[in-house]
Amino acid sequence: MKIKYNLLHNEKNTKARYGTLETNYGTFETPMFMPVGTQATVKTLDPDEIKEIGSGIILSNTYHLWLRPGEDIVAKAGGLHKFMNYDGPILTDCGGFQVFSLAKPKDISEEGVVFKSHINGERLFLTPEKSIEIQNKLDSDIAMSFDECPPYPVTHEYMKNSVERTLRWAIRGKKVFNNERQSLFGIVQGGEFEDLREWSAKETVKLGFDGYSIGGTSVGEDKPTMMKMIEYAIKYLPEDKPRYLMGVGEPTDLFEGVERGVDMFDCVLPTRLARHGHAFTKYGKINLRNAKYKEDFTPVDENCDCKCCKNYTKAYIRHLLVADETLGQRLLSIHNLRFLIKIMEEIRIAIKEDKFLELKEEFYHNYKNKN
Amino acid sequence: MKIKYNLLHNEKNTKARYGTLETNYGTFETPMFMPVGTQATVKTLDPDEIKEIGSGIILSNTYHLWLRPGEDIVAKAGGLHKFMNYDGPILTDCGGFQVFSLAKPKDISEEGVVFKSHINGERLFLTPEKSIEIQNKLDSDIAMSFDECPPYPVTHEYMKNSVERTLRWAIRGKKVFNNERQSLFGIVQGGEFEDLREWSAKETVKLGFDGYSIGGTSVGEDKPTMMKMIEYAIKYLPEDKPRYLMGVGEPTDLFEGVERGVDMFDCVLPTRLARHGHAFTKYGKINLRNAKYKEDFTPVDENCDCKCCKNYTKAYIRHLLVADETLGQRLLSIHNLRFLIKIMEEIRIAIKEDKFLELKEEFYHNYKNKN
Repeated sequence: MKIKYNLLHNEKNTKARYGTLETNYGTFETPMFMPVGTQATVKTLDPDEIKEIGSGIILSNTYHLWLRPGEDIVAKAGGLHKFMNYDGPILTDCGGFQVFSLAKPKDISEEGVVFKSHINGERLFLTPEKSIEIQNKLDSDIAMSFDECPPYPVTHEYMKNSVERTLRWAIRGKKVFNNERQSLFGIVQGGEFEDLREWSAKETVKLGFDGYSIGGTSVGEDKPTMMKMIEYAIKYLPEDKPRYLMGVGEPTDLFEGVERGVDMFDCVLPTRLARHGHAFTKYGKINLRNAKYKEDFTPVDENCDCKCCKNYTKAYIRHLLVADETLGQRLLSIHNLRFLIKIMEEIRIAIKEDKFLELKEEFYHNYKNKN
Repeated sequence: MKIKYNLLHNEKNTKARYGTLETNYGTFETPMFMPVGTQATVKTLDPDEIKEIGSGIILSNTYHLWLRPGEDIVAKAGGLHKFMNYDGPILTDCGGFQVFSLAKPKDISEEGVVFKSHINGERLFLTPEKSIEIQNKLDSDIAMSFDECPPYPVTHEYMKNSVERTLRWAIRGKKVFNNERQSLFGIVQGGEFEDLREWSAKETVKLGFDGYSIGGTSVGEDKPTMMKMIEYAIKYLPEDKPRYLMGVGEPTDLFEGVERGVDMFDCVLPTRLARHGHAFTKYGKINLRNAKYKEDFTPVDENCDCKCCKNYTKAYIRHLLVADETLGQRLLSIHNLRFLIKIMEEIRIAIKEDKFLELKEEFYHNYKNKN
């Protein structure tokens, strides 16, 4: 079946909203943060741990799975859920972001994008049709339209052409889409230009999708600009479909996004920070490799209910990191993901009680190194 | 309390024996294979996973913990069990093997061993007293006497001097030993020399320890020689104390050791193989990176009951290894450890039924690449 979004409560002081999203693999509440499982695994975690931290849905990357192991192998395994032994909802991105950021495209044409594989330099060609075909085979619960991710900043003229092309690509993708169990999201682009965001949003909505993403944020713009991009786009998106802000995972950005009406987020930040020994806490990020934690036998975050914080000390995690033992990265990944997912739990409660701004204020008051 | 070994059954056709070992952190059955947790963590696994695979006891390395994080930090954490959040039995080695193999000693004298830290080149000095003092602080359930691990082969004269010194070191270690909850094992050396093994065993037993290790195997000698070393030593060891063969983990070597009366084994082999993508199976070792597993959607070992084999396919594990995702190493580590621990379970049942040789024959019949 396609997903079904249920809008259950609009917070009275903001545009924040509480809802549920029904999928083939269960229903989750929104707003929700999605852990990223780039290569059919959330780095260092197993599926039991993913579930334990309360993630309602995870994201996996079409570009990476296309290159390795290849969508046909995933399809032969019975789809991505079976391949990776994860029976919760999965969203796949369209591959565009990786092609534009990681693989440095050689040539962007109306037809698609020519680029070099970041693994072996092989010349590859990704088109809107190909992206959808791969995602249909991966059999994720939610697929994304193929879009162009322009750098920031570009001229109004460049962005206008890009938005037009992304719309034509969305139409081409929709045309070949062929998976009844899968839903498809459109992507709103337009950079920091109000008129282009409006136009992109309206035209994308006209095409009719199961949900809408706000793209082209977190590509270098400052925070006020990012917030404007969200506001410009969101007011033209339908109330009865989920809204997904791509690539955003700073705790304060989650608050800002929710306040403006976003339902879903994803970001590699929590797991990447963990692999570098950093942890989120109520009071900001800390670096567990710091010598001051050598004999600190308290948990990473006293207020956290994750496996890491309930069972291990900063001193032990620091030892694991310094000794290059992967358990350290794993425990911090669990903690950082749980930290964001718990924020979203608290946010959902606050929305239902119309106390979103109180929660936000309290969080900002404690959380010092905002970015 | 000190450990208590209960000899419950002598297999009637061999020297294999079934027993239990009581410790401060629970009782386990012998013969048993011990996973190695070098740096206060069994590489890639968490304590729940260690327990899940049925390991009765794990080993941790005194040399590594001395260097990082330092025994005083572990002591301040409340001992090794608390530091690493593992409430099962732990054995620590004496540090000798690492000093002699990893750190390349600069100078071996009666007093002790001068060597360079493998981490930062710092000049360090390990003595029998220091080894015991560190282990007392680590507060493992079983500590080891400090011994010299000569290379293989050495002359009879060299080995005779070495055995004498190891005995004097054992006396010095016993003298300073100061932990009522901890037990201490003596180590029998003597290389491939029957007279020296006999002498080393008898003199070590005279000193009186809670258990006895057979050292100096797996350092380059051929298999028949290793078996002779075990036989030479074991006949002089008391029936009522556990016997531990250090550094042995090849499946067939476990059978050979048990047949000769060994109760405990340890080896980094299963986890090291896993990190290189290799897995034990009933039919021998396989390399999961091999392209032939690309579309193999069967488990690593059909007969295995571990989390890896019950939930994941060879194709997925191969993908994880090729994509450099640590979950692959973790799943194979779980499998390889479970494989050896399950062999020991089957061996214990066979001993109790006086069918050890039948089990051994069946295993050898299937297991092809013996080493």
